[in-house]
Amino acid sequence: MTDRKPPASEEDSLIARYFGPIATDPGAFNLGDDAAVLSAHGDDLVVTTDAIVEGVHFLAGDPPDTVARKALRVNLSDLAAKGATPAGFVLTLALPAADEAWLTPFAQGLSSDAGLFGCPLLGGDTVSTPGPLMISITAFGRVPTGKMIRRSGAKPGDRVVVTGTIGDAALGLDILKGGAVAAGLANDAEATAMLVGRYRVPQPRCAIASAVRDHAHAAMDVSDGLAGDLTKLCAASGVSAVIDAPGIPLSAPAAALLAKGSVSIETIVSGGDDYEILCAIPESGFEAFAAAARQAGVAVTSIGTVIAGASAPKFLDAQGREIALQRLSYSHF
Amino acid sequence: MTDRKPPASEEDSLIARYFGPIATDPGAFNLGDDAAVLSAHGDDLVVTTDAIVEGVHFLAGDPPDTVARKALRVNLSDLAAKGATPAGFVLTLALPAADEAWLTPFAQGLSSDAGLFGCPLLGGDTVSTPGPLMISITAFGRVPTGKMIRRSGAKPGDRVVVTGTIGDAALGLDILKGGAVAAGLANDAEATAMLVGRYRVPQPRCAIASAVRDHAHAAMDVSDGLAGDLTKLCAASGVSAVIDAPGIPLSAPAAALLAKGSVSIETIVSGGDDYEILCAIPESGFEAFAAAARQAGVAVTSIGTVIAGASAPKFLDAQGREIALQRLSYSHF
Repeated sequence: MTDRKPPASEEDSLIARYFGPIATDPGAFNLGDDAAVLSAHGDDLVVTTDAIVEGVHFLAGDPPDTVARKALRVNLSDLAAKGATPAGFVLTLALPAADEAWLTPFAQGLSSDAGLFGCPLLGGDTVSTPGPLMISITAFGRVPTGKMIRRSGAKPGDRVVVTGTIGDAALGLDILKGGAVAAGLANDAEATAMLVGRYRVPQPRCAIASAVRDHAHAAMDVSDGLAGDLTKLCAASGVSAVIDAPGIPLSAPAAALLAKGSVSIETIVSGGDDYEILCAIPESGFEAFAAAARQAGVAVTSIGTVIAGASAPKFLDAQGREIALQRLSYSHF
Repeated sequence: MTDRKPPASEEDSLIARYFGPIATDPGAFNLGDDAAVLSAHGDDLVVTTDAIVEGVHFLAGDPPDTVARKALRVNLSDLAAKGATPAGFVLTLALPAADEAWLTPFAQGLSSDAGLFGCPLLGGDTVSTPGPLMISITAFGRVPTGKMIRRSGAKPGDRVVVTGTIGDAALGLDILKGGAVAAGLANDAEATAMLVGRYRVPQPRCAIASAVRDHAHAAMDVSDGLAGDLTKLCAASGVSAVIDAPGIPLSAPAAALLAKGSVSIETIVSGGDDYEILCAIPESGFEAFAAAARQAGVAVTSIGTVIAGASAPKFLDAQGREIALQRLSYSHF
């Protein structure tokens, strides 16, 4: 009876063992086919794709389960900002080696988040690479037809609103890279862990996707730095904005570091990896939006106002003076 | 007026310049948003993802336009084998450097094929990497609800059918790697160019996707070697197969190399990168399938028969003796 099972390649066996259990959607065919089937159920499908590379988006020493979760969550963050409900994802994994000690916790982290956010694995491709580990995910969400929230659509008078706190992930990355932030924290282990955790495991704001869809004129997720991303949102909308920098929501460690001059506001607003939602909410809808966010347990803060004009958004200090920003965001090139 | 345009990052500028023109679908928003919208128009969406890595799936010296076309075509091949009509794709490009001399022909090749196959760019992500160039594409196709052709479904008595010719790409790769095939060709420039071309630029059989959908019990594309892929199709269908090896369609150069003993049949049937369609067609539908294929200008050849049983498919020589295959397909690990 040894010929009853055809010899599975290592690649197929690896996929079946590690990723089969995450492919819970019937359209994934247990990862046993060449493609998956995704039904839109009459909705529009929102498609987003984001890749993370070792040494660029995560560090070689990062725990595999957090790498998996970050890879999925950066995509979920895009879906949430577009007002979409997760429907599934496909994964491309470029591996230097099929290392079981790495794959086991990686698959566990992915499985855990796929379940948590209701976003099953639909398919993927696993390839070998002589280079760094890379994970590319394409994620799908559903919105009622025509209802995806775009970057364009912000109108003068809208409130500029962000979720959560800004800048933590950039500080966490600085700590991991042995930068000056660690010294500023004076061995505060709890603050260190919080900031590093914010870099490694973003919190996609899926819980308020429907509130964004119901109330926002425009939205995007903050992945490359608040200043740069707001500039993009304004450009897409043909508007400008004025931001009250002291009103930008900060975590306690970030606020303390800023207060004692260990980091600048520029680091906070141009650092990447926040994965919070930035949106333009009309004044008339703000109370309802804030109430829905409270209900969902997501902090939202109004940090400024959309204004007419085509100049780059201005960040004002406590005295109302414009803060000159040398750098707006992270760019790969 | 210098402040009218916010400073675009190099990354955004690169995306807009090179890839904006390929994003012709309105749901791509000219690549100016965080996500794309894909409407299923009441159909099922078929989703497939395939990545190619420099040094693994293509060679450092391959022309950039062929690299782009291969990256897209390996995905289009999956869609065709599933009976799906192309709807669009998203691209992840991991670049060691933003090299204009490489990006210009790469984007031209991608644009040309996106137009040729009616498969517009919907979105993507461009990241820097310290490692080899890698291109990951997720492609979408449409099929009427429930009509995707799967690997499973082949039934005893079905004909085993392949499109085009088998083994050429593996021979082309051997030539590029300076292997023994080149000597066997004795400086035949035309044959060399044909085989190398088959490795670099596969021909996805989109033209017969609807015929596959109408007639095949099961189908997949041959990407990892005919023997291995047929084994997978049989396993998924719970059947076996008998293949008449001399009936496997070969190009003239491949046939000549085989005849003079420069390559073995094992190299032909276990080499990867064919990107032909392998399918199981019921006897009753074969004439209609063959007629539709002729109409579409795609050669199809019946190479054997699906039989009951769970053993691996057998390849028989001209004397009806089973050919012992040491290797069935390419595996990454």
